[in-house]
Amino acid sequence: MSVPLRRLQPFELGNVAVEGGFWGARLQTNRRATIPHVYRKCKATGRIDAFRLRWRRGQPNPPHIFWDSDVAKWIEAASYALTTQRSPQLAKTLEEVVDLVAGAQQADGYLNVHFTAVEPEKRWKNLRDWHELYCAGHLIEAAVAHHQATGSRTLLAAMIRYADYIGSVFGRGKGGYPGHEEIELALVKLYRLTGERRYLALSKCFVDRRGRRPHFFDAEAAARGEDPAATRARRAGDYDNCQAHLPVRKQAEAVGHAVRAMYLYSGMADLAAETHDAGLLAACRRLWNSATTRRMYVIGGIGSARHGERLTRDYDLPNESAYAETCAAIALVFFAHRMLQIDPDRGYADVMERALYNGVLSGVSLDGRKFFYVNPLASAGGHHRQDWFGCACCPTNLARLLASLGLYVYSAAEANVYVHLYAAGEGSGEVAGRRVTIAQETRYPWDGRVRITVGLDTPCRFALMLRIPGWCRKYKVSVNGERVRPAVRKGYARIARRWRGGDAVALSLDMPVERIVAHPGVAEDAGRVAIQRGPIVYCLEQCDHAADVRSIRLPDKAALTARFDRKLLGGVVVIGGAGLAASPAGWKGKLYRPLSGKRRKVRLKAIPYCLWDNRAPGAMAVWLPRA
Amino acid sequence: MSVPLRRLQPFELGNVAVEGGFWGARLQTNRRATIPHVYRKCKATGRIDAFRLRWRRGQPNPPHIFWDSDVAKWIEAASYALTTQRSPQLAKTLEEVVDLVAGAQQADGYLNVHFTAVEPEKRWKNLRDWHELYCAGHLIEAAVAHHQATGSRTLLAAMIRYADYIGSVFGRGKGGYPGHEEIELALVKLYRLTGERRYLALSKCFVDRRGRRPHFFDAEAAARGEDPAATRARRAGDYDNCQAHLPVRKQAEAVGHAVRAMYLYSGMADLAAETHDAGLLAACRRLWNSATTRRMYVIGGIGSARHGERLTRDYDLPNESAYAETCAAIALVFFAHRMLQIDPDRGYADVMERALYNGVLSGVSLDGRKFFYVNPLASAGGHHRQDWFGCACCPTNLARLLASLGLYVYSAAEANVYVHLYAAGEGSGEVAGRRVTIAQETRYPWDGRVRITVGLDTPCRFALMLRIPGWCRKYKVSVNGERVRPAVRKGYARIARRWRGGDAVALSLDMPVERIVAHPGVAEDAGRVAIQRGPIVYCLEQCDHAADVRSIRLPDKAALTARFDRKLLGGVVVIGGAGLAASPAGWKGKLYRPLSGKRRKVRLKAIPYCLWDNRAPGAMAVWLPRA
Repeated sequence: MSVPLRRLQPFELGNVAVEGGFWGARLQTNRRATIPHVYRKCKATGRIDAFRLRWRRGQPNPPHIFWDSDVAKWIEAASYALTTQRSPQLAKTLEEVVDLVAGAQQADGYLNVHFTAVEPEKRWKNLRDWHELYCAGHLIEAAVAHHQATGSRTLLAAMIRYADYIGSVFGRGKGGYPGHEEIELALVKLYRLTGERRYLALSKCFVDRRGRRPHFFDAEAAARGEDPAATRARRAGDYDNCQAHLPVRKQAEAVGHAVRAMYLYSGMADLAAETHDAGLLAACRRLWNSATTRRMYVIGGIGSARHGERLTRDYDLPNESAYAETCAAIALVFFAHRMLQIDPDRGYADVMERALYNGVLSGVSLDGRKFFYVNPLASAGGHHRQDWFGCACCPTNLARLLASLGLYVYSAAEANVYVHLYAAGEGSGEVAGRRVTIAQETRYPWDGRVRITVGLDTPCRFALMLRIPGWCRKYKVSVNGERVRPAVRKGYARIARRWRGGDAVALSLDMPVERIVAHPGVAEDAGRVAIQRGPIVYCLEQCDHAADVRSIRLPDKAALTARFDRKLLGGVVVIGGAGLAASPAGWKGKLYRPLSGKRRKVRLKAIPYCLWDNRAPGAMAVWLPRA
Repeated sequence: MSVPLRRLQPFELGNVAVEGGFWGARLQTNRRATIPHVYRKCKATGRIDAFRLRWRRGQPNPPHIFWDSDVAKWIEAASYALTTQRSPQLAKTLEEVVDLVAGAQQADGYLNVHFTAVEPEKRWKNLRDWHELYCAGHLIEAAVAHHQATGSRTLLAAMIRYADYIGSVFGRGKGGYPGHEEIELALVKLYRLTGERRYLALSKCFVDRRGRRPHFFDAEAAARGEDPAATRARRAGDYDNCQAHLPVRKQAEAVGHAVRAMYLYSGMADLAAETHDAGLLAACRRLWNSATTRRMYVIGGIGSARHGERLTRDYDLPNESAYAETCAAIALVFFAHRMLQIDPDRGYADVMERALYNGVLSGVSLDGRKFFYVNPLASAGGHHRQDWFGCACCPTNLARLLASLGLYVYSAAEANVYVHLYAAGEGSGEVAGRRVTIAQETRYPWDGRVRITVGLDTPCRFALMLRIPGWCRKYKVSVNGERVRPAVRKGYARIARRWRGGDAVALSLDMPVERIVAHPGVAEDAGRVAIQRGPIVYCLEQCDHAADVRSIRLPDKAALTARFDRKLLGGVVVIGGAGLAASPAGWKGKLYRPLSGKRRKVRLKAIPYCLWDNRAPGAMAVWLPRA
């Protein structure tokens, strides 16, 4: 079934500079601190040297089954960083790592450290659990990014050989697909770079086989001599943990391991776009709606349950026990961005922005060297960032997403230029046959004013499509100082005209402090509000309050005021107001007591959620009881 | 270390009639419906016939390792029922079952179906996980109850042989103790019945060995050829799951599997009382405070976490995901009752009453044939009672507790008679050398008025100790129509006088509707109240409301009125008032939106928590957001 799918093209990463302002500072930290830190950790833990394949039975620290993916994501991050900014030092380190990785390739094209050096007899014996195709996917993404950044074919050639070998094992007429998705979207990237449709076809094999009966995971378990039923009963879930409970076109609910789900859906969206597959796109839309309109935290985090790192049920969004893995929010950004290129509806960009400014950015400390794997929306004070994890997916994922943030800002589509995100800097792309540059000056998200300057060699007619975020209820646009009232199409204000170089657009988005409520089905947030201003979700941190922040109530009528504090946390807008706190007195030996009429006023100070746990450790709360 | 421990003596079960009123009806249902239902289920599932030891390898439905305990608890329940009320039919069935059970005893005294018929080679090979001593404990409790009810020695003699055999394997100089406690308290019961101190000594062995290093559970794992560290890593917790992380006298926090914890602490309290062991009693007090002042739901449920059925951390009391196993609330009643007999402080009775009227009674449907294993404090509508469980501990535990409820009402202590619970009926015991009868007329818990009539052959001086419940802030007492102002000692109003037969005491406990708040540390209840009246905790059930009950807010100033509805749920006091609900409109496709100023008034109707899910299935909420 082939139907036309509208398709936006993001501006190329090398043509976008995100500089200055909110993101500029964070991206600089990513380049200067996070990427080197991740390298040092990969080095110190043996992940990089593992590619030398020198581990021998009996030695300590055997390379883990998914170490390869960490190094791959670091290569990808470093490549993106080099795409946007020169660094001879980083370039040198990158080439050393790439040479090491490529050198680990086997004669037949296979490339996986664990199943070469540690358990070679187990190659391809357990696609469900052992992450080989997942690691392969990350290496392919790394190779594409590395080639695009440097022009080098070292890793790309190796990955082409590996992909072709994988195709010979799992291609048309064969069986099997990964328990942890990732290779599906990677193969589409490889196809886009090389133009070789066989990679698209292989990705489609993996996607289309998923969930069919008789079940591949049962067959491979039986081949290992296991009782598949017994194995399933012992595990975190059934097939749905890896989205293999149904063929993907029949799936309607976002279920199972959240990162796996989002990687799969991203690959499905890529395939739908490339193959004009309306059925697959319809499944993507259903799964998008399931994930984002019934199973997503206000910070853009998904996957409520620690057990299995899973999406659970509609409206099951507990705060203190929230899992909301950083990688899952990142993967949601991937999925959102892909859907947005197919269908430029601000709903996708709103979720992308929500995740980026909140549940993604919370994943990394201000200094770029500490990370959250889990992002709760309330804490008793025991949750803190760490400088590394045994399972180190999140730091490496953060590094590569931030290094490639420029990809998410602009898109071109025939005679339209889309601005999805407001971020100081500039980007250029091909629009209506000409090179157009869009420069943004803005203090967003602290301020809703954005000044856009169009750069063009010769005048040209196209439409500038400016996203009016879903959180914004009043805005103004002017062009060269004159107020215009553009039509809004799917949330994008359309300013079509014959543009000249130097034309200036002023967008002013009203950004009041808002109290946000959750759907009545979210029982834990009943009677509670979250504070949001623009795309930023706020929280109370204990170090700003004497009363236990988890007991502070916010009267509906209390005024909330926004104020920029340039000294705090690198410069942030803080929200102030008057709250009510529970009395801490008279509780000795008591767990329950009658409500007393006493009211205790407290001054509350809310800071951006993404910046909590950068000061003194303590409790934190996003959803505040109303009073 | 021997110190005097004050000691109350409960009135004997056979001398207490709980009749009419609130409990009379529930106990009748227990006798008429629950006990026969549990028997039929034990029969139909093979639990009873398993004692014929006819199962052979290859046959279906092998007797499970803890089936014996279900039959034992049914024997105990049936015995208590026969103690208070004649039933030739029940007596006949009971003797058949007892004969079957006793007939399964092996020549050496061992009596366990699974480890005789199914895996005889595994006898005593895994005390940590395989529940043999747990089953033995329940059989001993059953034997004591059966002998007390019928005078028969059939089961008692068998259990004495079994206990002596257990003593030969695990007694002084040997090692080992159960992973699931229960036998500790059972052996004290056997000691109390027989006067044989060796059973007390064996119980003390099990208690005192617990948690010592080198660790017995490691030693037995090693003896099975396992790596203990690997085993522990795979399991729900470490030693603390079975309270074996420290010697019991060093334990300060109630941890691990909640039922195991309470059974252990009950046994410890028994031993402390019998052996005048102040150190052990101090540990009991610490563990009591930990469990009841920092880790208990307002319904008297304990054990927040489904995973491992465990107690977790202080103030970690999630509502919708609450586990609060029925058996754990029952076991808390056991522990409370034992502490109360050592130290007649109403704090123990308050918790006992809280659990009985709420988190215990919720475990069984009004018709007596359906059961909750898990007792959440909020539900999206998917939680319902079942007529049985693969792990059927709760129905059998409910049956035996309710059948023995009379034990919990009164105690005697030298020249004092304690009334712990208010319940229509009467009880008699030996006080100051004479038989005293206490008759209660009351509609409690629907009404705070209790009329007590003293029955005595000849006048006699003693003190009537009437519990003034912790929830009660105003009360009146009169004797023979004259107001008295008794001193209150540890929450018991002391009316000391020369009593004559026919003397009447009128107690009137003020029972307003109260809003209860939880300790500020309970983050999930911040900004919420529970409705309580007398000992009854209320909830909103969906079938009484159009708005989603989990979104209904209760304004602090809204009047709440109590009204007896004789047609509802067998006759209950319902609480009415005006609440505010979230608007259900305009949410299509949305998960979050700005708070609107609109207020939607709804009439709310709260019913006793213990009676929810007896009508149309639907959502439920105990803790209501304040407004």
